Amino acid sequence: MLSSEIEIEIRFSETDAMGVVWHGNYLKFFEDGREAFGKQYGLEYLTIFDHGFFTPIVKSEIDHKAPVYYGQKIKVITRYHPSRSAKVLFSYEVINMSTGQLAAAGQTMQVFLRRESRELELITPEFYRAWKEKHQI
Amino acid sequence: MLSSEIEIEIRFSETDAMGVVWHGNYLKFFEDGREAFGKQYGLEYLTIFDHGFFTPIVKSEIDHKAPVYYGQKIKVITRYHPSRSAKVLFSYEVINMSTGQLAAAGQTMQVFLRRESRELELITPEFYRAWKEKHQI
Amino acid sequence: MLSSEIEIEIRFSETDAMGVVWHGNYLKFFEDGREAFGKQYGLEYLTIFDHGFFTPIVKSEIDHKAPVYYGQKIKVITRYHPSRSAKVLFSYEVINMSTGQLAAAGQTMQVFLRRESRELELITPEFYRAWKEKHQI
Amino acid sequence: MLSSEIEIEIRFSETDAMGVVWHGNYLKFFEDGREAFGKQYGLEYLTIFDHGFFTPIVKSEIDHKAPVYYGQKIKVITRYHPSRSAKVLFSYEVINMSTGQLAAAGQTMQVFLRRESRELELITPEFYRAWKEKHQI
Repeated sequence: MLSSEIEIEIRFSETDAMGVVWHGNYLKFFEDGREAFGKQYGLEYLTIFDHGFFTPIVKSEIDHKAPVYYGQKIKVITRYHPSRSAKVLFSYEVINMSTGQLAAAGQTMQVFLRRESRELELITPEFYRAWKEKHQI
Repeated sequence: MLSSEIEIEIRFSETDAMGVVWHGNYLKFFEDGREAFGKQYGLEYLTIFDHGFFTPIVKSEIDHKAPVYYGQKIKVITRYHPSRSAKVLFSYEVINMSTGQLAAAGQTMQVFLRRESRELELITPEFYRAWKEKHQI
Repeated sequence: MLSSEIEIEIRFSETDAMGVVWHGNYLKFFEDGREAFGKQYGLEYLTIFDHGFFTPIVKSEIDHKAPVYYGQKIKVITRYHPSRSAKVLFSYEVINMSTGQLAAAGQTMQVFLRRESRELELITPEFYRAWKEKHQI
Repeated sequence: MLSSEIEIEIRFSETDAMGVVWHGNYLKFFEDGREAFGKQYGLEYLTIFDHGFFTPIVKSEIDHKAPVYYGQKIKVITRYHPSRSAKVLFSYEVINMSTGQLAAAGQTMQVFLRRESRELELITPEFYRAWKEKHQI
């Protein structure tokens, strides 16, 4: 299974009045995880864009397990999940590196939109099929 | 079923390089929806805080149905879902008022933490039990 | 002097671990103020865009006078400052409506970029000249 | 002159509908710069907090020189400016590493608030005086 890791320092602006990371910011961490994955395996947003597509998020889920405080560091583990349809599926684990605890888990689903028309592409784009083949998925 | 509505104008800062609202911002719209609900039915964050509790989000889901562009206005419909356990469940619909389309749907789950100890409260707090009774839930 | 007012409720996500609105969020409130001004006087971002221009912020300043807490409401007063050059100047006052205090003051400067080439427009665009004339500026 | 450098990758969520980094996000980059400085020289937020103080931003300025696009990387150079009064002054340069251009410059002023009372401290706190002495400021 293809996966990737990235370490992130919490910004002060990412905390809320409870003194912990505001829950919605985990979608930014997931985004960081996807980008780290894309960089490692050659599937960056800009690569996809150059092939004529956007890949907007159409579904996301977050399960919060433990709070993360300012001054703590996190690690995001991003795992790629193969799909037969024209979708990109990732799952994520956010580890609080200061405690070793799992802070959150989640997943996202992305689809392919044609860049110009913004129409949904239902057939796996050729570049993505080639990418999967290269990685034996 | 208790529900609440609020209209929101999209901020330019909430758009992304695809020209649409960045997907993570919907969790802010859900938050706006919860607060509007809280204000309407007397269940604001600060009321809960005054009763000695935080209610952090432990689970959230978003399904994106259609993009929202800058200059468009949205409406968030927030619905309260009763639960026997010490949890607060909401579902949300985000309507693009400029198109009439459903832009996104989602749900959140909150738990009760004791304000001082930050320990999980497993039994429905008295003030919340009274709130439910008042609203015949 | 042309001016405009808008009331804003603080989002929980806009607070930080000090329990107050994170300082950087005031630039969002200024943006809300500009848009309210634009709506009132016919100078919205989208109107400017339709005339072939972007008006990016090239300078901004914020003076923080007093904190704003979650649960408080603010009012942004946006004032237009005429300029002979191809610039758009605004100043802002953020009033904490719960205390009556001035929470922050600031100002921004915008320039005109041609939408397609993204080149700086040094001469006041015709539509903007007409807008100024209409408002006797 | 004490200074510090940090490299930052642009998040997709930090772009706006003009396709560039939204101007307000530079205050996050400045915050990253301050924290990198604090880490390098022992003046982190949490260190200051442990000595009984908050250091909120009371003034900030940003001059935007050139846009930063998604996929580009920036470097923030943070410089410490000595002051005789109980203030902390930094200036910042944001370099677009992909073009070598100066993307933005700015400055911030912070004051000392006593952590418990949140009262303004007009006299340089002892720990900060010692810190300055250690660094021969």
